[in-house]
Amino acid sequence: MTHPDVGAVLTRVRERAPLVHCMTNVVVAGFTANVLLALGASPAMVENREESGDFARAADGLLVNLGTLTAERADAMRSAVRSARGAGTPWVLDPVAVGGLRYRTELAQELATRSPTVVRGNASEVISLAGGRGSGRGVDSTAGTDAAAPAAASLLDQGAGCVAVSGAVDYLTDGDQAVRIGNGDPVMTRVTGVGCALGAVIAACAAIEPSPLTASVAGTAIMTVAAEHAAEVSAGPGSFAVRLIDEIAALTPDVLEEELRR
Amino acid sequence: MTHPDVGAVLTRVRERAPLVHCMTNVVVAGFTANVLLALGASPAMVENREESGDFARAADGLLVNLGTLTAERADAMRSAVRSARGAGTPWVLDPVAVGGLRYRTELAQELATRSPTVVRGNASEVISLAGGRGSGRGVDSTAGTDAAAPAAASLLDQGAGCVAVSGAVDYLTDGDQAVRIGNGDPVMTRVTGVGCALGAVIAACAAIEPSPLTASVAGTAIMTVAAEHAAEVSAGPGSFAVRLIDEIAALTPDVLEEELRR
Amino acid sequence: MTHPDVGAVLTRVRERAPLVHCMTNVVVAGFTANVLLALGASPAMVENREESGDFARAADGLLVNLGTLTAERADAMRSAVRSARGAGTPWVLDPVAVGGLRYRTELAQELATRSPTVVRGNASEVISLAGGRGSGRGVDSTAGTDAAAPAAASLLDQGAGCVAVSGAVDYLTDGDQAVRIGNGDPVMTRVTGVGCALGAVIAACAAIEPSPLTASVAGTAIMTVAAEHAAEVSAGPGSFAVRLIDEIAALTPDVLEEELRR
Repeated sequence: MTHPDVGAVLTRVRERAPLVHCMTNVVVAGFTANVLLALGASPAMVENREESGDFARAADGLLVNLGTLTAERADAMRSAVRSARGAGTPWVLDPVAVGGLRYRTELAQELATRSPTVVRGNASEVISLAGGRGSGRGVDSTAGTDAAAPAAASLLDQGAGCVAVSGAVDYLTDGDQAVRIGNGDPVMTRVTGVGCALGAVIAACAAIEPSPLTASVAGTAIMTVAAEHAAEVSAGPGSFAVRLIDEIAALTPDVLEEELRR
Repeated sequence: MTHPDVGAVLTRVRERAPLVHCMTNVVVAGFTANVLLALGASPAMVENREESGDFARAADGLLVNLGTLTAERADAMRSAVRSARGAGTPWVLDPVAVGGLRYRTELAQELATRSPTVVRGNASEVISLAGGRGSGRGVDSTAGTDAAAPAAASLLDQGAGCVAVSGAVDYLTDGDQAVRIGNGDPVMTRVTGVGCALGAVIAACAAIEPSPLTASVAGTAIMTVAAEHAAEVSAGPGSFAVRLIDEIAALTPDVLEEELRR
Repeated sequence: MTHPDVGAVLTRVRERAPLVHCMTNVVVAGFTANVLLALGASPAMVENREESGDFARAADGLLVNLGTLTAERADAMRSAVRSARGAGTPWVLDPVAVGGLRYRTELAQELATRSPTVVRGNASEVISLAGGRGSGRGVDSTAGTDAAAPAAASLLDQGAGCVAVSGAVDYLTDGDQAVRIGNGDPVMTRVTGVGCALGAVIAACAAIEPSPLTASVAGTAIMTVAAEHAAEVSAGPGSFAVRLIDEIAALTPDVLEEELRR
C-alpha cells in the first residue's frame, strides 16, 4: 500500500520552499539548516529578543527547540510564539531534555498550553512535558514510544494539534487517529541533531499542510526513509550524518510512499 | 588568459596564515573555521564584549557577520570595528538577512559608514543595506547581482573599499573597476554557510592583500572554483559541504588562475 | 607491548555510556557531541545560569571549555564547577586561547585552582594558564609540548589531577608519572574542534576511570589512533573530520592497545 498524502507533502514543500523560522540549539543549528535546505525549504535562525517576534510573523513555519536555552532565548521564544499564534503560523515545540531540569520544564509546560501545532519529542520528554515522570537522562530517552500515549493525550487536551513521539517505532497522534512508523535505523541515535532536525522538517511540512498529523507523518517519513538510505551507504555515524542530507535531497515522492512502513 | 594576481593571493595566505577574527553566526561558525583552516588561515571566534575589541587589534583581519545577532554581539561588533579601524586591520561586513528586520538593518547601516574594507552579501542584502528595497526572504536572495550595482556604488560612497555581490554571477566593484565571476555551482545555495564562509575567506585575503577588490576577487575565485571541483565528486549537498573543504585545501594557485572565469 | 588499561577504559565507556555535561564553544559543539556519541558516551550541552549547576550534579563528567566565552557562560561555568566538586563529579578544564586575552585568562586561572580532574590544552595555553608567557596566537600553539612541563607541574601543585598537553607528541603527567604519546596526524591541526573534542573524550573517560592520568592517556589514545585511521581514508580535512567520527565508533580495544605508541 502506498501513502500518497506523504508524497504530496514532499512535493508541495519543494514547490513552495516555506521559510522556516528556527529557534534551535547551537549544537544542531548548522545541521538543521542543511537538512531544511536539502528538503527544499528555506531556513532562517533568528533568536534574539529584538527580532524574533517580527520574524515569526513573516515566516511560514516556526520551530521552538529548548536545547541550549538561555533567559534571552526564552523571552525571544515567548515573543515568537505570540506572533506565530497571532498570524496563524504553524509552530512546533521540541521539549529537549525536559524533565530533569526545572527551568526548561516550566518554560516548556507554559509553551505547551499555547496551542503548538505539533509537539515533537522522545517518549521521556513527552511524558515529562505532560507532568509525568520521564526516564530521560539528558537528551536521551529510555522509554518506548507507546508508553507516552497517555501523555500525548494530555498534551492534545491542553491544545496541541498533534503529538509526535520519536523512537524505534514513532508514535504520532492527533487524538482522532494514531499512526505508528517503523522506518529508520539505530545509527540515528548516534548522531546529534537528527531528532532536532526532524522538528524543523515537521515545521516545514506544517507550513504547507493544514493537518498537523499529516504534516508530522510526512516529516517523520521523510527523515526515517532517508535515514535508511543513508545508513546503507555509510561507514559510521560521521558519514551517516553527511549522507542523510544527500538522501533527503535525493528522495522522491514515489520512493517515500513506497518505502514508508506505517 | 590566466589571472596571476589571484594565484598570488592564495600563495601569500598560505605563507602567512593570517589570524582572522570571526564574529559570525552560530549556524555556520564551525564550517567557517574549517574553511579558513583548509585555506591555510588561522581562525578565531571571539564575540564577547570583554574581549572582542582587544582581539580585533591583534588579528590580521576581521569578519563581522550579522546572522544570529544579539544585543551583546552588536556591542562586541561595534567594539571590534572600532579597534580594527584604529589598528588598520582590514574588516569585512556581511549584512546577513538585512532588509526585513529593522534591528539588524539599523546596525548594518551604522557599520557600513565605518569604512568596511569589503561589504559582501547577496543582491537583496546589498540593496537593503544601501537603503533600497531588497527582495530577500530571510537569508535568500532573489535579485540578480547586476541589480545591486547602484546600491554598491552608494556603499562605496559611504566608505566601503569594495562591494562583493554574490550570486550566480558574482559582481565585485571598488568604484574604479567592476569584475564579474562566472564560476560556482547551484548546489552552493543548498548548503548553509557558503556565503558566510566566503566573507571569512575574503577577510583572510584582505589581511595579506592591500587592494580590497583583488582580495575580494581572490576570495570569490577560491570559493567558487573549489565549489566546482567539489560538486563533481559529491552525491548531494551533504557531501558537497565536506568535499568543498577538501577542495579548498587541495586548490593550487595554477589551477585557480586557469579555471577562473571573469 | 600492549596497553591493556587503555583498552579497558574504552570498553567501560561503552558499557556505561557516561553522561558528559559539555560547556563548550559554539564553534565545535556539534562536532563534540558527535565525537562523544561515536565513542559511546552520552553528551548534553547545558550552559545557562539557571540549569548548569543542577545539571553538573547529575552528570557523570563535566567539560569546561573557554572558547566563545560570555559573562553568562562564565557564571554558569563557576556554578557547574562548584556542583561538580560538591558531587565528586570529575571535570576537565580546557583553557582555549588563554594567554592573549585577559578576561578569559583570569577566569581560567581562577578555575585552575578549583581542583580540575584534568587540564587539557596545547603547550602555549598550559604555559599561559600557569602564569607564564605562551607563544600562542589565538587558539594555535607554536610551542613544543615538553616546554610546558614546568607549567604542568605548577598546575598540579595548584590542585589539578593531571595535565594533558596536546601537540605532535602529547605530554601527559599527574606528577608521579609522565607519558608521551606519538600517535596522530598533522591533518588534526587543520580541522576545528579536534582538541576541544579531546577534552570531552577525556571527561567521558574520567567519568568511569578514577586515575586522572589513565583517563587522559586513554582519551588521547582514542582520539589520536582513530585520527590515524581516518587520515588514511580521507581526501582532505573536510572528509577527515567526518571519517574521524566513523573511526572512533569503529575503534576496538584491541586495536587501540596495539597501535598506541607511548
